[in-house]
Amino acid sequence: MDETPPSGVEIERKFLVDRLPGGLGEGDRIEQGYLAIGDDGVEVRVRRRGDDMTLTIKSGPGMTRTEEELAIDARRFESLWPLTEGRRVVKTRHLVALADGLTAEVDVYDGALAGLLTAEIEFPSEAASQAFTAPEWLGREVTGDGRFKNQRLAVEGRPDEAT
Amino acid sequence: MDETPPSGVEIERKFLVDRLPGGLGEGDRIEQGYLAIGDDGVEVRVRRRGDDMTLTIKSGPGMTRTEEELAIDARRFESLWPLTEGRRVVKTRHLVALADGLTAEVDVYDGALAGLLTAEIEFPSEAASQAFTAPEWLGREVTGDGRFKNQRLAVEGRPDEAT
Repeated sequence: MDETPPSGVEIERKFLVDRLPGGLGEGDRIEQGYLAIGDDGVEVRVRRRGDDMTLTIKSGPGMTRTEEELAIDARRFESLWPLTEGRRVVKTRHLVALADGLTAEVDVYDGALAGLLTAEIEFPSEAASQAFTAPEWLGREVTGDGRFKNQRLAVEGRPDEAT
Repeated sequence: MDETPPSGVEIERKFLVDRLPGGLGEGDRIEQGYLAIGDDGVEVRVRRRGDDMTLTIKSGPGMTRTEEELAIDARRFESLWPLTEGRRVVKTRHLVALADGLTAEVDVYDGALAGLLTAEIEFPSEAASQAFTAPEWLGREVTGDGRFKNQRLAVEGRPDEAT
């Protein structure tokens, strides 16, 4: 039996995508922008995914982990979005079913990051994560590579080697 | 007759306080802390005043003015407050009635800013602002002195000359 990880800890692996698998639908458009990123890494972002709009505050890397998400309405989102200029990630997310009941979140980036393709897979346990065999459409693994975090993609753009 | 200023534009003057006027009540305790201040001056702060807790996002100085305030509950405030460490202003606000129906918001700072006393007066018109004669308990005027903005007081502390 798989062990269940401690509550709140996600076991994820992230890959570049060599070629998109067939049969993708329309996907979900996601627009997210950073209102402010503090010196200590605290980040405040807004995100729109379909009709869901949220404002999220996350602690910085050296701090006790805190994450708070607030629902906001369309008027607030439209008011705040201009404050994120130059710090945005726009992408379309596709959910792709894999073996063993796993799902890949395949992100097709747009705008300044156009051409970048990533896939993230969440596992129910460390064992499942280690046993995973990547399908051939996945490319290089970038788990733990900070340059592919959305915050850094938004500010720094696409890493050279992911072109 | 006084002219009404354009909607959203506040006509305010700010002073240091030489000595607190008599008859102050308990006042309202205000705790505010900055979650993040971006490179472009966008600020995100949380504030507690009595039972009112808010999260506010303000645009930076070079941008079209935007300000959005969201009510948050006590659980969220308590969760976010630790992220503001080192960027806080704690003060007690007293409302003091002046001549001509004006009111001074007298702030008695606490914590790292203890000893600082400021008063802010909002006027119904430019004419009223110019005609104002400060009562003798007010000290030097600091209107427009950026060092006395709460954001800078929170980060930089008390200006030397205000000691």
